[in-house]
Amino acid sequence: MSDEMITSTRNARVRAAVALARRRERVSSGLFLLEGPNAVEGALDDDVLVEVFVTEDVAPDWEDRLPPGVELHVVADHVLERVADSRSPQGLVAVGRVRRQPLEDLVGSGLLVALHEVSDPGNAGTVVRLADALGARGVVLGPGSVDPENPKAVRAAAGSLTHVPLATDVDSDTLLAACRAVGQPVVALDAHGDTDVDDVPVGPAGVVVLGGSEAHGLPREVVERVDVVARLPMWGRAESLNLGTALAVAAYSLARRVRR
Amino acid sequence: MSDEMITSTRNARVRAAVALARRRERVSSGLFLLEGPNAVEGALDDDVLVEVFVTEDVAPDWEDRLPPGVELHVVADHVLERVADSRSPQGLVAVGRVRRQPLEDLVGSGLLVALHEVSDPGNAGTVVRLADALGARGVVLGPGSVDPENPKAVRAAAGSLTHVPLATDVDSDTLLAACRAVGQPVVALDAHGDTDVDDVPVGPAGVVVLGGSEAHGLPREVVERVDVVARLPMWGRAESLNLGTALAVAAYSLARRVRR
Repeated sequence: MSDEMITSTRNARVRAAVALARRRERVSSGLFLLEGPNAVEGALDDDVLVEVFVTEDVAPDWEDRLPPGVELHVVADHVLERVADSRSPQGLVAVGRVRRQPLEDLVGSGLLVALHEVSDPGNAGTVVRLADALGARGVVLGPGSVDPENPKAVRAAAGSLTHVPLATDVDSDTLLAACRAVGQPVVALDAHGDTDVDDVPVGPAGVVVLGGSEAHGLPREVVERVDVVARLPMWGRAESLNLGTALAVAAYSLARRVRR
Repeated sequence: MSDEMITSTRNARVRAAVALARRRERVSSGLFLLEGPNAVEGALDDDVLVEVFVTEDVAPDWEDRLPPGVELHVVADHVLERVADSRSPQGLVAVGRVRRQPLEDLVGSGLLVALHEVSDPGNAGTVVRLADALGARGVVLGPGSVDPENPKAVRAAAGSLTHVPLATDVDSDTLLAACRAVGQPVVALDAHGDTDVDDVPVGPAGVVVLGGSEAHGLPREVVERVDVVARLPMWGRAESLNLGTALAVAAYSLARRVRR
């Protein structure tokens, strides 16, 4: 290829990457952006990387680390900034393949983390990072949830996004039926739950911890159909905790017993 | 007073309230803003409210609920929006008195939550809400931390800000000396800690849980001087959790044993 053809091909790749800031583009292409060394490093062994854009100064750090078949594009600083959603991608943005796991592959044992509906991308990413730390089987998101490959979610996941199997657009009926089929109890978190989360028994089929939306918690018709409605004890005057806090405390408590 | 004088006095109050969006104004006046029904309702019994701005449509809900001496100003919708930092204060913004507690009053028993340095106001507010739920003795923030009366922190605290005694600008030396003086152990959270947080013993002097900054964790010189360096077990590939998640899980574990 002539230099000109290389430049024009690269410009087309840059334009395609910039477009991935939009959810519609991510859905139609099945691709998303990983920004900065943490996110890209986290994905090196996960067979998801397609291509990597770097600035000249950091190119030497990455040339020999990319898996075979992953293209490296050295671009000017202002080009990289255009691709990145964040202000400081530290000279590095990658394009990765969106992956989803069938729900059936995630149920039946261990800990599964499910959210009825999460609208804040930072919360979605934090939950993915939590699930990774807990060695959870995966994260299940309900319809209407934020896209877990939203750039803010990817950032909050801090390198964990490509570590955790994700099932999205899973409604409560589908989740409850799949869990019932394999005998895995679903534990809903609710401020009015009747069981302290530390007292929820965990058997060989593992457990699913289910959280609601940030604003409204879980709908009543879901709470009425789960196996256990659990709460965290509260000793002060606060009437509730935020979604991320409650889910983290509950999931840790359950994960310890899953591991025992 | 003539109608004109009343209007001019009210305008001056509005201008003073608008200025409280700035930290410098909060510090010099000792006042801050509480926006929306949750925050104001949380403060009704806490002897901190100075005055309340409401729009005409919600005024009837609040007229009879304010403690004696708290002025109610009915203002136009656009005036209320100008006072509020958030987009939807639901017709209600109050001015409250900033309160601080001497560190000596917070140590010696129970659970105390301390942050070396927190820079995100949302995190600061979430920690205050957590401390409230746990019935903690208070929250201690190090120098360089965000102002807990920052409007975003007040919002994240969801009505808990005025429930929890706060000591700010407390450096690690001061905190460690005060705890040593009363025999209360300080438990630092660190991904490389040697003790699982569930195994940290809690005695009659209670315990202090100390978290680092969002970006850098705790400085080494602090970690080396605390009584216990605790970690959360991690079973996946994530190498750490975010500050809020880790603190919530650890503080819950300790709070359960404090309460026993």
